[in-house]
Amino acid sequence: MTDQTTDETRAAVAATRARVAALHGELVRYGLVIWTGGNVSERVPGTDLFVIKPSGVSSDELRPENQVVCTLDGVPADGWDNAHGPSSDTAAHAYVYRNMPEVGGVVHTHSTYATAWAARAEAIPCVITAMADEFGGPIPVGPFAIIGDDSIGHGIVETLSGHRSRAVLMQNHGVFTIGRDAKDAVKAAVMCEDVARTVHIAKQGGELVPIAQENIDRLFDRYQNVYGQTPEGALQ
Amino acid sequence: MTDQTTDETRAAVAATRARVAALHGELVRYGLVIWTGGNVSERVPGTDLFVIKPSGVSSDELRPENQVVCTLDGVPADGWDNAHGPSSDTAAHAYVYRNMPEVGGVVHTHSTYATAWAARAEAIPCVITAMADEFGGPIPVGPFAIIGDDSIGHGIVETLSGHRSRAVLMQNHGVFTIGRDAKDAVKAAVMCEDVARTVHIAKQGGELVPIAQENIDRLFDRYQNVYGQTPEGALQ
Amino acid sequence: MTDQTTDETRAAVAATRARVAALHGELVRYGLVIWTGGNVSERVPGTDLFVIKPSGVSSDELRPENQVVCTLDGVPADGWDNAHGPSSDTAAHAYVYRNMPEVGGVVHTHSTYATAWAARAEAIPCVITAMADEFGGPIPVGPFAIIGDDSIGHGIVETLSGHRSRAVLMQNHGVFTIGRDAKDAVKAAVMCEDVARTVHIAKQGGELVPIAQENIDRLFDRYQNVYGQTPEGALQ
Amino acid sequence: MTDQTTDETRAAVAATRARVAALHGELVRYGLVIWTGGNVSERVPGTDLFVIKPSGVSSDELRPENQVVCTLDGVPADGWDNAHGPSSDTAAHAYVYRNMPEVGGVVHTHSTYATAWAARAEAIPCVITAMADEFGGPIPVGPFAIIGDDSIGHGIVETLSGHRSRAVLMQNHGVFTIGRDAKDAVKAAVMCEDVARTVHIAKQGGELVPIAQENIDRLFDRYQNVYGQTPEGALQ
Repeated sequence: MTDQTTDETRAAVAATRARVAALHGELVRYGLVIWTGGNVSERVPGTDLFVIKPSGVSSDELRPENQVVCTLDGVPADGWDNAHGPSSDTAAHAYVYRNMPEVGGVVHTHSTYATAWAARAEAIPCVITAMADEFGGPIPVGPFAIIGDDSIGHGIVETLSGHRSRAVLMQNHGVFTIGRDAKDAVKAAVMCEDVARTVHIAKQGGELVPIAQENIDRLFDRYQNVYGQTPEGALQ
Repeated sequence: MTDQTTDETRAAVAATRARVAALHGELVRYGLVIWTGGNVSERVPGTDLFVIKPSGVSSDELRPENQVVCTLDGVPADGWDNAHGPSSDTAAHAYVYRNMPEVGGVVHTHSTYATAWAARAEAIPCVITAMADEFGGPIPVGPFAIIGDDSIGHGIVETLSGHRSRAVLMQNHGVFTIGRDAKDAVKAAVMCEDVARTVHIAKQGGELVPIAQENIDRLFDRYQNVYGQTPEGALQ
Repeated sequence: MTDQTTDETRAAVAATRARVAALHGELVRYGLVIWTGGNVSERVPGTDLFVIKPSGVSSDELRPENQVVCTLDGVPADGWDNAHGPSSDTAAHAYVYRNMPEVGGVVHTHSTYATAWAARAEAIPCVITAMADEFGGPIPVGPFAIIGDDSIGHGIVETLSGHRSRAVLMQNHGVFTIGRDAKDAVKAAVMCEDVARTVHIAKQGGELVPIAQENIDRLFDRYQNVYGQTPEGALQ
Repeated sequence: MTDQTTDETRAAVAATRARVAALHGELVRYGLVIWTGGNVSERVPGTDLFVIKPSGVSSDELRPENQVVCTLDGVPADGWDNAHGPSSDTAAHAYVYRNMPEVGGVVHTHSTYATAWAARAEAIPCVITAMADEFGGPIPVGPFAIIGDDSIGHGIVETLSGHRSRAVLMQNHGVFTIGRDAKDAVKAAVMCEDVARTVHIAKQGGELVPIAQENIDRLFDRYQNVYGQTPEGALQ
């Protein structure tokens, strides 16, 4: 199924590498990452592979060809000219792909405001309509987990399974987002930091006005359904 | 009146499309929008049409020709090569144009600091002279309203009719601004976020010093009148 | 003395116009101004003239040739091809030049953090060594004053005469800085916003540690004198 | 040992000058310095020399050839075409090189959030995993020290000797970072400001959740050792 001799697979891998490299640039543009931080990955359609950012390569040097092709076990796949090791967070991405088949893209950042909520293990309350649209309610907190085994991946899957939110604040760590593809996960990372910042600032100024649950439900439902077949037209 | 066979109308539509596309770039430059967010619209002079940003098109891809020409009912007008659907906020813009004939431009953003005040349903007090100049007093809060009917448009018109401010903070949502044309509304959006940020920061540090009402009145009057025939020369 | 037929005067005016236009770009670069806001001026060496930014021209369109040559009465000087009116703050700049002969440059901004302190009429305490170097102590607050007569200029001169600080926070308004030339005043504006921001953030987190007066004095003295004949070498 | 007639030494000096000039650009990119502020230095491998930024030269004008070659006494070395004086902080850098032979690069900034913690003489607590990775615990505060003798250098060495952190917040002043080379020290400066900002914001919102010491130890150990032979691959 991941036979690299197939022209179709080769084309799919090449296209995914190009998308992942380009999308990392969006994390830079929106100020979500610094130095070599942050990582974007995407499943290769029609295969058991995913592509992830290389480890320790600065944003300026990310190219389609240096993105790393991995198996769903989170190790570099043979035969794909992987010149670099994969991101140190690859195990967490792989765990998500193995356990959430509907997920096609994963993003991780230490973006400032989201990480600030995570350092307090405090969920972001849903007090702005754009957040109801995009996340359908609060952005939840996942467990404290140490890099090195499946505990980060497990915490992401446990928190987001069955949850409306595509973003989770991993306690004392940062944010992971999921999406139907990498662009969708990047959008979630950008929107997560935006609402994390806005709600933080709002809260510093005094009492937040809640949005009634029924209105959150209506907004989320409309955004997912009225926008309909193309819930996020921008991504097409 | 909106006969697209008239050369004059065609020229007016083309010029408006160019202005709207370019002005959206100012929202990006000043950091008021992210991803595909925010929208600018402008009446087409001498017609019953207005031009608005397309839905779900990223800022990098906005071009004069993909701006959407709409009737005052908020639907795409026939015969204008509209390749994209209009912004999801088009109904609110149309409601404003129908009910406030003096308004020639409308802008909507979720800019961070303005939205933070909106999440507390708190008007921004007028404690800096630039705010007295530009808004003539506090920036008011409009009602909570859900997208999908005229309630957002109604809330904007109800709040801003007869008010000095060209900006309204829609509760739990974001900011809408109006102007005599799109550039004027964009300026109001830029200035609104600027004063929202400055006054937020000022308030975090302690007690604000009020400006006496008579001084607010003098400043607003001077800015509107002494600058005279061209109250905002920069816009010419 | 301001005879524009003299080659020397013409050269001095042209050089000053070029410096003023370029220095305004530094206000943009450091995020101190938005839209058409802020203004830089500089005396023309060897004359009774100064050059100031035109009114209502956006930063992108500032050119040496559209900077306005004014007399010390704050009105455009005859014979200098002034195509635009001078900044609306010209009267305040002129008042400073008339009353502080040692001042060669003036800058005005509504930069965010400095204006936030001004909205509380609170001086910025000197708790960082760079502030002791540059301002020699706290940055003082000037009176509330309305545009339209000499009251702003008078407030600046009254506050800064005999003061170590080259910056004054005009209550509810913004910041004015002075310098031996325009570059020196721009540097003061950049540094003023930087310390306004740093000290604001420091204060939000808890008790500030004061710097002993004798240490402030030693730092200021060293910065002015040890750096010696060229106290700010960077400006040469 | 510092014989400039050796081709090898000349090449090493030229390469170091190029690195120091380029790395200063990273301080600008990450917003850690303004105007002519901040300084980067690096030992010249195989010599008793180091290269440091010139004094009072703006970031735009930094070139490899205007970086200053100094002896370990902190004075310009003869025979290296030093056209500018060295940074006013050269004595502190030199003191570090003389007393910490393992240090190959030093950086100094007044970055906003780090300096805000310094103005309260408050160490940054280790509440995010990236901080445990990079600094192995809190970022400590060094003593108040006045420029002009060895007291700043002494304070840096005293605070960082035997400490896991490569960054020190000098009270009321700013931050100094050390590294095995200049790039490593620049990375520490970038990460220090990032965690200073994130933890400040987190703390403004409420109670921070601590990370257990054993987890801080595991994270630091892994980051230094599992990443192994190339603990910071990005720097290669």
